[in-house]
Amino acid sequence: MDFVIIGGDAAGMSAASRARRQYPDLTITVLEQSYDVSYSACSMPYNIADPQTPMENLVVRTAAEFVDKHKIDLRTGHKVTAISKDKRQVSGRTADNEPFCTGYDKLLIATGAAPTLPDLPGKKLLMPLKQLEHGRQIKQAIKDRRAKKAAILGMGYIALEMCEALTILGIKVSIIKPSYRFLPWLPEDLAQIVKDELFRNGVDIHLGTAVKSIKAKKDKVYLHCSHMTLDADLALGATGVRPCSELARDAGLALSVSESISADSYLRTSDPNIFAAGDCADAFHVVTDKKVWIPLALRANRAGWAVADNLFAEKTRLQGVAGTAVFKVFDLAVARSGLTLYEARAAGFDPVENRITSLSRAKWQAGAAKIHVNMVGDKKTGRLLGAQMVGTDGVAHRINAVVVALHASMSVADFIQTDLAYAPPFGPTWDPLLTAAIQLEKKL
Amino acid sequence: MDFVIIGGDAAGMSAASRARRQYPDLTITVLEQSYDVSYSACSMPYNIADPQTPMENLVVRTAAEFVDKHKIDLRTGHKVTAISKDKRQVSGRTADNEPFCTGYDKLLIATGAAPTLPDLPGKKLLMPLKQLEHGRQIKQAIKDRRAKKAAILGMGYIALEMCEALTILGIKVSIIKPSYRFLPWLPEDLAQIVKDELFRNGVDIHLGTAVKSIKAKKDKVYLHCSHMTLDADLALGATGVRPCSELARDAGLALSVSESISADSYLRTSDPNIFAAGDCADAFHVVTDKKVWIPLALRANRAGWAVADNLFAEKTRLQGVAGTAVFKVFDLAVARSGLTLYEARAAGFDPVENRITSLSRAKWQAGAAKIHVNMVGDKKTGRLLGAQMVGTDGVAHRINAVVVALHASMSVADFIQTDLAYAPPFGPTWDPLLTAAIQLEKKL
Repeated sequence: MDFVIIGGDAAGMSAASRARRQYPDLTITVLEQSYDVSYSACSMPYNIADPQTPMENLVVRTAAEFVDKHKIDLRTGHKVTAISKDKRQVSGRTADNEPFCTGYDKLLIATGAAPTLPDLPGKKLLMPLKQLEHGRQIKQAIKDRRAKKAAILGMGYIALEMCEALTILGIKVSIIKPSYRFLPWLPEDLAQIVKDELFRNGVDIHLGTAVKSIKAKKDKVYLHCSHMTLDADLALGATGVRPCSELARDAGLALSVSESISADSYLRTSDPNIFAAGDCADAFHVVTDKKVWIPLALRANRAGWAVADNLFAEKTRLQGVAGTAVFKVFDLAVARSGLTLYEARAAGFDPVENRITSLSRAKWQAGAAKIHVNMVGDKKTGRLLGAQMVGTDGVAHRINAVVVALHASMSVADFIQTDLAYAPPFGPTWDPLLTAAIQLEKKL
Repeated sequence: MDFVIIGGDAAGMSAASRARRQYPDLTITVLEQSYDVSYSACSMPYNIADPQTPMENLVVRTAAEFVDKHKIDLRTGHKVTAISKDKRQVSGRTADNEPFCTGYDKLLIATGAAPTLPDLPGKKLLMPLKQLEHGRQIKQAIKDRRAKKAAILGMGYIALEMCEALTILGIKVSIIKPSYRFLPWLPEDLAQIVKDELFRNGVDIHLGTAVKSIKAKKDKVYLHCSHMTLDADLALGATGVRPCSELARDAGLALSVSESISADSYLRTSDPNIFAAGDCADAFHVVTDKKVWIPLALRANRAGWAVADNLFAEKTRLQGVAGTAVFKVFDLAVARSGLTLYEARAAGFDPVENRITSLSRAKWQAGAAKIHVNMVGDKKTGRLLGAQMVGTDGVAHRINAVVVALHASMSVADFIQTDLAYAPPFGPTWDPLLTAAIQLEKKL
């Protein structure tokens, strides 16, 4: 039996490792176009902020380990260019331009996501941050150019994490975005708190600013915008990602939201012998029960495991994602799970939201800080639909109570009843989440 | 209409305040034997650790505020000594020994809990910590005696919180307990971690040590134990609490677990005109659906509110408690929710437990620390029954994901699927709770 995996990142290597544990006799081949497998992509901004620690530190397992220890035929430098469903084979070229062709019984497409850089003159000067190699390049550029100024296109998680990383290195950062809305999935007053944190740390924010072209001159880059020109030592492109679904599309597999590969709860594509997992594939949303494309690490790992479980029988059914995300930007943590008011409206709910500000600890405690919670509920059913939070203390793990409630389709009224932990060093008697739910319930 | 409340602490004042908002014409009388109402009892150890801040700082609202602003007839220094169900009246004596008698249409018993001090010669020398007055006395004693050594009888939450508070003040602490088991509701290896933290901070732990008598000599107290004598500048009694249910018992109301007052989900006692709420009353446990007596602040507040809602109709049904608790002891946080293995067995489940050690943050992150999770599940049904956690980072709020799962009667398999938040500064890709659940599921 031949199990072939295209892509050696989170989903692909999770599937390979678990398949090896479950089926000792299976032939497992992983085809990876780069030379890096199994590393923590999410940790790259933190590694960049630390010049003493090599990027290699983020490698969890090397390619050699997979080959030698786990008997996985991991072929790096192998770029797959076509899948033939009928012949059950994949073909492509190696980094040395040698053609290759491999047959499979079961195939997993785990090609991940790729940065979407804006199509403008000089776009090659924009450095993305997706693969380990990108991280190395940015780190090297900072060193070689003794960077003091950086421009970042985009204002998503990665862009904001990089604001912090570069500021730690003493680099003055400007972030640029064509639209006027900062963190559009946060209520505006919560987004303003994040903005203030960036200002406070010296980051320049250019909203409503389209970059028209980028030019290099000596060691500098110049970003020509509608009404100004920014100069910087390096320019990062963090304007989002798209699913790498071309192979699947060309093979005639069904695509879904944002051109991601359509996969069912068992990670099966429209072809019975092909699975898709990780950032290239879609998922069900546990609140709407509709397909979404939210590329995140935990889902990729979980989906990889599930593929291994489901290779020969439908064993592991994934419930889906709750749209949970959390990130740190300077002293702030920003978290969300479930739907925003607008997403809830678009999904056919009759939503209301309510915003509260509470304290992260009992008010007499050192370290007590403001915590802002926006909670969304459905008027029709009373159901809890989502929450967004911002604060300097106790935000990241607090969101997980909401996550579990969303998986359980809990009502706001039932959430109010939960016996959340209380001790003065960790929260007020009524946790901010309970206060948020109590106030929201009044509007339902 | 007369609503009379016995006890002006969390449950009583919550009920009074909410009843006032809901029924502007109601006559609300609160009879409180002490002179302190509405203060944060749980914050007393932290206040004691801070000599600069008066104990009065913990008062949320003064008696005068309730009287003037909220038109609540709050009578401090009023000790109720009898309830007559038939005549619908309560009677007692004031601090000046004046008798009083008050009629009611609806009565709330919110008499709280009282410290249980061991019955031994010299027990009057033991200082309890339950009411604000106790806090004042301890604080004063530390100051007056320039305390350098303290002995604490008991090793529960309050005792351990006081270890930290007194150590901060430069006081050497010994804790003493007759039995040999430290934190019996924690698996032994987790309990050992807490013990190590106490040792590390210079606390002497005397397990298996019964105090036979206590004597005072000059400004010192001497605790005569089975095999040694401890001397100290002050001796605290933190050997647990019992529900103040004598009034209810004498009035012929039904009692329940640990002699607490039996209350249904609407907080009604066995008499249709009498409610009971707070530390004097029992509650349903959401996992076992059986009665328990777990006196904690959030439940008291919540139950007080519910009484106000339910005064004239059954509006708010409380689901019950999950047995959640969290406390801090030096750098450690200890948290639990739901059942331990032994509690689960006693409740008729077929439980197994599993212990994992993971990291609180991604391993490359500064501040990543070990986090220990013990999780309990039911073999028969696959249901998640409880968890206990110990660690220096990210313990307190993490437990809340378990709390919500317990309220939702979630299975371990479903918990594994939850889309918990991930970002390197806040956790590994697989949150310790997910790792714990995955490993536990293998045993189910």
